[in-house]
Amino acid sequence: MQLAKVIGTVVATEKHEALEGIKLLIVQPLTPDGEPTGRPVVTVDGTAMAGPGEIIFMIGGREGALVLEKWFTPVDHGIIGIVDDIYVAVSALPD
Amino acid sequence: MQLAKVIGTVVATEKHEALEGIKLLIVQPLTPDGEPTGRPVVTVDGTAMAGPGEIIFMIGGREGALVLEKWFTPVDHGIIGIVDDIYVAVSALPD
Amino acid sequence: MQLAKVIGTVVATEKHEALEGIKLLIVQPLTPDGEPTGRPVVTVDGTAMAGPGEIIFMIGGREGALVLEKWFTPVDHGIIGIVDDIYVAVSALPD
Amino acid sequence: MQLAKVIGTVVATEKHEALEGIKLLIVQPLTPDGEPTGRPVVTVDGTAMAGPGEIIFMIGGREGALVLEKWFTPVDHGIIGIVDDIYVAVSALPD
Amino acid sequence: MQLAKVIGTVVATEKHEALEGIKLLIVQPLTPDGEPTGRPVVTVDGTAMAGPGEIIFMIGGREGALVLEKWFTPVDHGIIGIVDDIYVAVSALPD
Repeated sequence: MQLAKVIGTVVATEKHEALEGIKLLIVQPLTPDGEPTGRPVVTVDGTAMAGPGEIIFMIGGREGALVLEKWFTPVDHGIIGIVDDIYVAVSALPD
Repeated sequence: MQLAKVIGTVVATEKHEALEGIKLLIVQPLTPDGEPTGRPVVTVDGTAMAGPGEIIFMIGGREGALVLEKWFTPVDHGIIGIVDDIYVAVSALPD
Repeated sequence: MQLAKVIGTVVATEKHEALEGIKLLIVQPLTPDGEPTGRPVVTVDGTAMAGPGEIIFMIGGREGALVLEKWFTPVDHGIIGIVDDIYVAVSALPD
Repeated sequence: MQLAKVIGTVVATEKHEALEGIKLLIVQPLTPDGEPTGRPVVTVDGTAMAGPGEIIFMIGGREGALVLEKWFTPVDHGIIGIVDDIYVAVSALPD
Repeated sequence: MQLAKVIGTVVATEKHEALEGIKLLIVQPLTPDGEPTGRPVVTVDGTAMAGPGEIIFMIGGREGALVLEKWFTPVDHGIIGIVDDIYVAVSALPD
């Protein structure tokens, strides 16, 4: 799973019907010490509690749909938890 | 899911029979603030409404086929929505 | 799907039995304006008509096997069409 | 599979119910000669024995869930072994 | 599929039970002209004949398990052939 920060939302009127009523968040992947890494992605929220500025962790690929009630919804990323704390050996991080 | 802009189309006479009659669009992945990121890909359109210049969001991997009527069509990207607006905390974006 | 150019072939005597009789092509992924992007991959050909120098588009991941008669063949890329023409707004391409 | 080093843990109160009671580790992918490569990811532990500082190998994608008892748990990385030793022709590594 | 060179092995006492008795090889992905590209990965060998120094091609993702007898083994890369020769239009390779 990937750590990321919620940075925005996407509004779309024309979309796949399976996405009706599903909130779409933009998240920026982060390293464990909080630096942005890689490009932002659009994701759905399996916790239903993630808001702007929060650090979350998400799954990618087919598993993304497992966080929704309907597994065949066409999504490829899903938030599965909101991070309270990260404990990491900073010495082990890349420079 | 990935934000992207529709930048073109592909014309192919010789192709897998499951792709007959399916429109193939070239899209350029974008960051939330509209910068190109990564390489363009060829995708199908689950909304049937995406046109050149429009900002869309798409899914990658196996899920791509879920946007079509026939799920076993061999595609790996699919447009699932047309973006009306993006709300993002610009301060949260990478420099 | 990814645009690519057929640049070669792989010859392998020792291989998984499911690959017997299946032609293996090396393709170089391309941007829509024809520049190489990313590393070449080995792929199978669902059109049975792709030859050296041709521009094709292919799928990646599990979908690769859908282009063959036997879906459980262990492949992860498959050519699904030969490109006749690409229409793209050049102004929309990254510099 | 990818070699990596366990560098930390993630604590999350709000999370997908399928993740209740499952330990979440942060790991830094490594090259065979021990250099960090790519970004750290959050993973579950199929060995139930991986601790901080240990070198492990993990799988990515849907296979990640295979290391848990419940295959439909939404995870995309899973530790499948703890490395005792790596034997590698150093001359074969990139500079 | 990806071209790669076998550069080593991984020894692991503690591992997922499905991996008992399965040899784990470290391979370095290569370009068609033999240059290392991307990071080394740990893989299983569906040919049962790949040894150090040999050039092989492998599949990634879920397909990796198809090369083993038990498809639900948690692996994400699998060697499916040993390369005898590569024929490539060198002029078509990136600089």
